[in-house]
Amino acid sequence: MSDVRVTIQRDSEREERVVTTGTTAADLFQGERSVVAARVAGQLRDLAYELNEGDEVEPVDIGSEDGLNILRHSTAHVMAQAVQELFPEAKLGIGPPIKDGFYYDFDVETPFTPEDLKRIEKKMQEIQKRGQRFARRAVSDDDARAELAGEPYKLELIGLKGSAAEAAEGASAEVGAGELTIYDNLDAKSGDLCWKDLCRGPHLPSTRVIPAFKLMRSAAAYWRGSEKNKQLQRIYGTAWPTKDELKAYLEFLAEAEKRDHRKLGAELDLFSIPEDIGSGLAVFHPKGGIIRRVMEDYSRRRHEEADYEFVYTPHATKGKLFEKSGHLDWYADGMYPPMQLDEGVDYYLKPMNCPMHNLIFDARGRSYRELPLRLFEFGTVYRYEKSGVVHGLTRARGFTQDDAHIYCTKEQMADELDATLTFVLDLLRDYGLTDFYLELSTKDPEKFVGSDEVWEEATETLRKVAEKQGLPLVPDPGGAAFYGPKISVQTKDAIGRTWQMSTVQLDFNLPERFDLEYTAPDGSKQRPVMIHRALFGSIERFFAVLLEHYAGAFPVWLAPVQATGIPIGDDHVPYLQEFAAEAKKQGLRVEVDASSDRMQKKIRNAQRSKVPYMIIAGDEDVANGAVSFRYRDGSQKNGIPKAQAIAEILDAVERRVQV
Amino acid sequence: MSDVRVTIQRDSEREERVVTTGTTAADLFQGERSVVAARVAGQLRDLAYELNEGDEVEPVDIGSEDGLNILRHSTAHVMAQAVQELFPEAKLGIGPPIKDGFYYDFDVETPFTPEDLKRIEKKMQEIQKRGQRFARRAVSDDDARAELAGEPYKLELIGLKGSAAEAAEGASAEVGAGELTIYDNLDAKSGDLCWKDLCRGPHLPSTRVIPAFKLMRSAAAYWRGSEKNKQLQRIYGTAWPTKDELKAYLEFLAEAEKRDHRKLGAELDLFSIPEDIGSGLAVFHPKGGIIRRVMEDYSRRRHEEADYEFVYTPHATKGKLFEKSGHLDWYADGMYPPMQLDEGVDYYLKPMNCPMHNLIFDARGRSYRELPLRLFEFGTVYRYEKSGVVHGLTRARGFTQDDAHIYCTKEQMADELDATLTFVLDLLRDYGLTDFYLELSTKDPEKFVGSDEVWEEATETLRKVAEKQGLPLVPDPGGAAFYGPKISVQTKDAIGRTWQMSTVQLDFNLPERFDLEYTAPDGSKQRPVMIHRALFGSIERFFAVLLEHYAGAFPVWLAPVQATGIPIGDDHVPYLQEFAAEAKKQGLRVEVDASSDRMQKKIRNAQRSKVPYMIIAGDEDVANGAVSFRYRDGSQKNGIPKAQAIAEILDAVERRVQV
Repeated sequence: MSDVRVTIQRDSEREERVVTTGTTAADLFQGERSVVAARVAGQLRDLAYELNEGDEVEPVDIGSEDGLNILRHSTAHVMAQAVQELFPEAKLGIGPPIKDGFYYDFDVETPFTPEDLKRIEKKMQEIQKRGQRFARRAVSDDDARAELAGEPYKLELIGLKGSAAEAAEGASAEVGAGELTIYDNLDAKSGDLCWKDLCRGPHLPSTRVIPAFKLMRSAAAYWRGSEKNKQLQRIYGTAWPTKDELKAYLEFLAEAEKRDHRKLGAELDLFSIPEDIGSGLAVFHPKGGIIRRVMEDYSRRRHEEADYEFVYTPHATKGKLFEKSGHLDWYADGMYPPMQLDEGVDYYLKPMNCPMHNLIFDARGRSYRELPLRLFEFGTVYRYEKSGVVHGLTRARGFTQDDAHIYCTKEQMADELDATLTFVLDLLRDYGLTDFYLELSTKDPEKFVGSDEVWEEATETLRKVAEKQGLPLVPDPGGAAFYGPKISVQTKDAIGRTWQMSTVQLDFNLPERFDLEYTAPDGSKQRPVMIHRALFGSIERFFAVLLEHYAGAFPVWLAPVQATGIPIGDDHVPYLQEFAAEAKKQGLRVEVDASSDRMQKKIRNAQRSKVPYMIIAGDEDVANGAVSFRYRDGSQKNGIPKAQAIAEILDAVERRVQV
Repeated sequence: MSDVRVTIQRDSEREERVVTTGTTAADLFQGERSVVAARVAGQLRDLAYELNEGDEVEPVDIGSEDGLNILRHSTAHVMAQAVQELFPEAKLGIGPPIKDGFYYDFDVETPFTPEDLKRIEKKMQEIQKRGQRFARRAVSDDDARAELAGEPYKLELIGLKGSAAEAAEGASAEVGAGELTIYDNLDAKSGDLCWKDLCRGPHLPSTRVIPAFKLMRSAAAYWRGSEKNKQLQRIYGTAWPTKDELKAYLEFLAEAEKRDHRKLGAELDLFSIPEDIGSGLAVFHPKGGIIRRVMEDYSRRRHEEADYEFVYTPHATKGKLFEKSGHLDWYADGMYPPMQLDEGVDYYLKPMNCPMHNLIFDARGRSYRELPLRLFEFGTVYRYEKSGVVHGLTRARGFTQDDAHIYCTKEQMADELDATLTFVLDLLRDYGLTDFYLELSTKDPEKFVGSDEVWEEATETLRKVAEKQGLPLVPDPGGAAFYGPKISVQTKDAIGRTWQMSTVQLDFNLPERFDLEYTAPDGSKQRPVMIHRALFGSIERFFAVLLEHYAGAFPVWLAPVQATGIPIGDDHVPYLQEFAAEAKKQGLRVEVDASSDRMQKKIRNAQRSKVPYMIIAGDEDVANGAVSFRYRDGSQKNGIPKAQAIAEILDAVERRVQV
């Protein structure tokens, strides 16, 4: 037994330690219950790892990204063991950790039922309590094949060893470029083998360390993600470092589901995505149309005030234009296929508006006096998203950008970027989003056009402009497109989810490609700088984000119906209709429920459609020329004189508040 | 010599006459100088036609449609004779009358120059003065071939005799289903043959009868309109019953050319149709964008007030939708070709919005209480117009309809149509079009869906509604689409041209095909009636019509720049900028020309861009807090206090007048 010198690394602190041979990482972090693995010389290792001379060792906390992955991966093993104990004929597919959880695929005769999931979960709790150890063991390919002879999918994975496995969905958790390993689940007392799996690890030391987990749902999934292969049954689960975190996550999911814009879109009759039109192509119903129109109108007014000029461009064009812009070279996969017109000319739906705005800039000579020239369009673009990734309005195949391109001189660039970013953030705040951070995407050294100097100057300008906002600024090194650096605005919604919203992007490429020029004061021809900026990004997506952010209870100015009149009796209908007519004259959207429903039903209907104000009127109100307000939360305010009632709603519109 | 009894028919008057054998139509109408031919038993005949027993003879006046065609056809012969006298090697193509004139095609070595046209015109005047007779002569096919052995194109036409010739462009003027005829041009005195042409006639009695003609231009044209054939040279000319009419026509052409929206669109920087995008696909520049936006905004406001609801639908859809609507059966030629997505699903650009609006109607159950439901959209559609017929913005391949579909009960139909037509005409008047007539397109007995009773009721409803407007109502029997009768609004512009504008169309077909239903008060399911209506038809086309109607001098409310400030000296720039800021605050679009140009140049520039108001300011104005107006016609009004000046422009906006 001799001495082994190791270094413990925690954040920026380093601690030299001398231990005896055979000491494990577990020994090193004894008593630190939240440490579930170690990072040794950059490699994740089990706590059972025996330390070697010179090792630099970092503890991996269960709450860290790596720790969570290990927790979830181990929980996936426990699930697989439970499934095979309950369904001995089930064959194993793969079982990696994913965002917020894990899954495992099984080849079984019949899909799992919700009752099956309950039984599996119960069995997992048993295994968790047994405190089985996870034990790593290197094996030769032949031994692995012999041991896993009954698992045909694992045999296939052994054959994939190496780089092919890295590319296969989820398979890299099982086999990699290095040695093959099997993880045994061993009984805590006897050390007997309870279950095993081909796996790269690392894993928790014991199932007892799993603090909180839950199975979510099962779904069909093709083996290795290909429709040509057999359909397996996938079980999704989640696992967390504490019961409270699990609870919070489940509550978050329930809240997110309640707010799902696809669900609310149908419930509130705002939009639909008809099967006959196709996925990713939405139609806006009248109520959704009002919200969208109000969103657009306000944006337009603000853009007008900020001296943007409005243009219109078509949705289809000859391919020639996208050859010129380069899109057909580097973006063809994202475009709809061509349509051949006029015996041999390819036309495409536009995936972006910029090339068309460049044609407008270039339609006549431009003078420095016209710069900055800000061309704005609500431009509907079409992008061929793969059917698997299309999702409601947030990932669509056709959507409308609030797209502007600003052409300015190099000298104007800083001021223009500054004004643009301030404008963008101001406007987002007006729509009720207030929690932002900025991301600065900088040059990918492998892939960029333009000189280093120009990039540096532009990036520094963007950085200064971003810092001036006093918002957190997250670097995104190498994240810029090849044509220029970018600031993006990231927004947190009401339940804490982050959405990428606006982008402000510099472009050194398109002005070159389109040979854009302006005449400088000295008569020389100069190349303008081009700024791409979208605030909503996509109106459809922004609409969905607001819908989820507000859970459908829009602020008064955006609500499709701002107030619904609810008569206590039929006698009070004309009184409310008169009130509604007066309110409409003043620009409000007011309806009266004159149906034969009972009053309580009318209130429920108005509540369900999330109308900000219910205007209730009975005999006393009529006698006093007043109405009563009932709010979405059920609270009520009585005897408000009619004029004051209208003024109060108008004020809420003006202040853009949710009531 | 015996008696021949004939009847002379003029309008509704009939006159029996007994003449001697050998009497010609010319004898019958002797002294009536404007009669150039006769219609005998429905057939057009030369005046040299010898009358037969029982003939019903109608004089054909040179000013009638038939008379003009004969005049122009004879003038085409004179032109061809002139060409062959000057260019003996020229071979004859065809030479029919067309709208407002005629053309003749020639196979010549080199295209005609403007100087050639002048020489030809001079030669034609000589021929006209010679007073050659046009003489008809029937020939056998073989004789015609022998006589025209030197004219290869005529030989080809002889071979086409019969129905094939009717189908060939222009060829039906030369050979038809009946006997072959040649027209000889004979010397007035000697009777010698001067020239001849294969021709069905009829013709004027003599070249001397041609009152006024002019050659317009020459252009290349393929023989029989096919790119596969040889390119010939076509000369266009015009001919009129009086010199005054010719002069008026040439003035009209000059005026129309000045107003050509494509020319004005470029001059006023309103829009362009970039070669890189493709013909029929326009981009609107900022100034055109303002006009279009003001047009749309006003339309939208009026539609809102009239209780239309606004929807949004995508531009592309699965073919399935247009199978359901029937468009792929009867409109596929007018559609862009399909794009294949998702391994085998055809998607199309939409040529019409109606099927998508039907999906919105059908997105949930509808109650009679919701009817009439009026769904409105500025919906951009794409139609595959053949490249030869595409023309600027008036015949485009992509355009935006101000499209609405009204769903109502049968009982509501009459009131709804009435309100719709009144609404449409009111709105057209607001845009400055005031000279209308209506056209009622009724059932094509060969091609319609729905019962006779429904058609009759709907047609009578439309007729009553149309008559109520007190406008001329022109019947268009058989002109309806198969799915329902239609009213269209025809508008005359400032130079008297007629444009078809709005249409109001009943549809019995789509509600069936989409199985649209609403719940009636008795709980039963009922089929709604559907009304298609577009007011502008296409915003782009309406934009072009207004641009030509106003010759670019838009009324103040539509003018992209409503006033341009022109300082007398540089000192007066800040004063005008302050004025402009105040005017902008009040909603006006005002610019100040602060360039280094001299004042006269600034005035010329403002005049050229057709700005309604020039706001001029000098020392005296500044001293008095006033400005001077200079109008588009050059007249001026001085010393207007600033507030009053703004009020005057606002008033002109409000009243939607041209100043």
